Amino acid sequence: MTKIGIVGYGNLAKGVECAIAQNDDLELAAVFTRRDPASLQIRTPNVPVLKLEAAADWKEKIDVMVLCGGSATDLPEMTPQFAKDFHVVDSFDNHSKIPVHYAAVDAAASESGHVAVISVGWDPGLFSVNRLYASAILPVGKDYTFWGKGVSQGHSDAVRRLPGVVDCRQYTIPVPEALERVRNGEDPELTTREKHTRYCYVVAEDGADKAAIEQAIKTMPGYFADYDTTVEFITMEQMKRDHSGLPHGGSVIRSGVTGLDGESRQTIEYKLTLDSNPQFTGSVLAACARAVHKMAARGEKGCKTIFDITPADLSARSREDIIAHML
Amino acid sequence: MTKIGIVGYGNLAKGVECAIAQNDDLELAAVFTRRDPASLQIRTPNVPVLKLEAAADWKEKIDVMVLCGGSATDLPEMTPQFAKDFHVVDSFDNHSKIPVHYAAVDAAASESGHVAVISVGWDPGLFSVNRLYASAILPVGKDYTFWGKGVSQGHSDAVRRLPGVVDCRQYTIPVPEALERVRNGEDPELTTREKHTRYCYVVAEDGADKAAIEQAIKTMPGYFADYDTTVEFITMEQMKRDHSGLPHGGSVIRSGVTGLDGESRQTIEYKLTLDSNPQFTGSVLAACARAVHKMAARGEKGCKTIFDITPADLSARSREDIIAHML
Repeated sequence: MTKIGIVGYGNLAKGVECAIAQNDDLELAAVFTRRDPASLQIRTPNVPVLKLEAAADWKEKIDVMVLCGGSATDLPEMTPQFAKDFHVVDSFDNHSKIPVHYAAVDAAASESGHVAVISVGWDPGLFSVNRLYASAILPVGKDYTFWGKGVSQGHSDAVRRLPGVVDCRQYTIPVPEALERVRNGEDPELTTREKHTRYCYVVAEDGADKAAIEQAIKTMPGYFADYDTTVEFITMEQMKRDHSGLPHGGSVIRSGVTGLDGESRQTIEYKLTLDSNPQFTGSVLAACARAVHKMAARGEKGCKTIFDITPADLSARSREDIIAHML
Repeated sequence: MTKIGIVGYGNLAKGVECAIAQNDDLELAAVFTRRDPASLQIRTPNVPVLKLEAAADWKEKIDVMVLCGGSATDLPEMTPQFAKDFHVVDSFDNHSKIPVHYAAVDAAASESGHVAVISVGWDPGLFSVNRLYASAILPVGKDYTFWGKGVSQGHSDAVRRLPGVVDCRQYTIPVPEALERVRNGEDPELTTREKHTRYCYVVAEDGADKAAIEQAIKTMPGYFADYDTTVEFITMEQMKRDHSGLPHGGSVIRSGVTGLDGESRQTIEYKLTLDSNPQFTGSVLAACARAVHKMAARGEKGCKTIFDITPADLSARSREDIIAHML
């Protein structure tokens, strides 16, 4: 049995909580929050909700702490800090800053003798591990990653900050022709605009200048300027009725060749179609918490990534069982 | 640099040879054969072809031996035997006999202190590892494996043994409607017949009773009786012109739900589209040979499967590099 603590209680933490409930070998021990614990009603019965500062008292009662903070400011501080006292898992997803985060977490975890798995989820995470397998097997080839159709929370937030905007849901959508060309092994060179389109459902304030909002979205540098973006104004009722979920997904495709003359085209595609991005990400974190517990029991320590986890360690089933029935 | 020996020189061995040529960190040291070495012309220049019995003299000159024998009679003897003197990789693919093979190889490799990776390729192999990842992440769900469109060599051979048949190429084809229902998350119960169809291109002897051949194929127990099979008679010229390749592929799909009430449908699909089955399988074996070399260098020993290999060990790139650029 792996006793898990969750730090934070946003969408991702709730996803981890749901995943724990689906696994007989995982148990939710406690939830730690920066908010007033009395204000939180969690979904699992008979599990304490405690202040973040109380975590240190739970060192002996928690096998793995799953850190559900944000990558911008929470995890860079939180993961090295918690790695001093706990085996930890996080979903740090700022790709360009992973080496810096890795170094900080590795220093803390190596010194304290804990295992810390960072940057798990689906991208980084399952998409990364599929890029790795595919490039190891097909060294002569090209990688493509398509995201969506799905809600990009960062882009939705960026639109919400514009004057006159009450709410926004931004969908990222792969361009079907681009996906088709990659799947057909054409190895196309694709610009940002050729790979994805963006679709924004926007609720505007009464009397807002919709043309100005649309223009501000479509020209926003770093978010929309490089894409073909469609803006559709809807009512708050429509937003709540049609866009309350957080679906996402995408495909990682490796298109390569084998043979002494590169005569054989070989294509590997890994595709996710997700009704709930945070629940799926939470499920990946829960499986990784199990792996961390096993790795720690073998005496491993330091910072690890999904590249360092054997598939067997992710499974609740015994090694004998999976060799006999899943191989 | 990993110095690799290849045992055997059929289609799979040639696939391994091609894969080695695509990887700067892999080097083909020698090919060992039961045939007369002088009768073999391999594709890599300046590499010796030797009799199988000479392998023992190469213990110090080969890091990993890749065993390209058949699963029916070769590998059950060959892999334990070679594991006494070498780190080895094989592609043993008789799913139901894997535990017996594992035990025999583990006994030999553990005693001699070698690493032996068995049953790699794509099924067993990459399909297995994707089944494992997907079921660990989505414990509440169903697995589906579809094979094809591709040439099934065992089924082609079975037809070739019928009286009056000169040659046959048998294609296994997933039923598009079944695939679609699984991808749509309908979780259907599918019979063998509902999942795949079989298509046989047959070259018959002059004057053969084609109706009798067709009947014999369609009713063959264990091979065709449970499927809707189409038989098409063609000429040897058509066979050579249109069916000389060994394409294959397929999809592993996990369709599951998350959420406290199972309210979110989550689908994971891993799909291979292969122009050349043996070259792709050979590429997987080559990547595993690299991993074996790394595992052996760390002092690991005994029988391993793809479930026991960290993704990082499969890659030619350094851990720092893949964490910085592939995560």
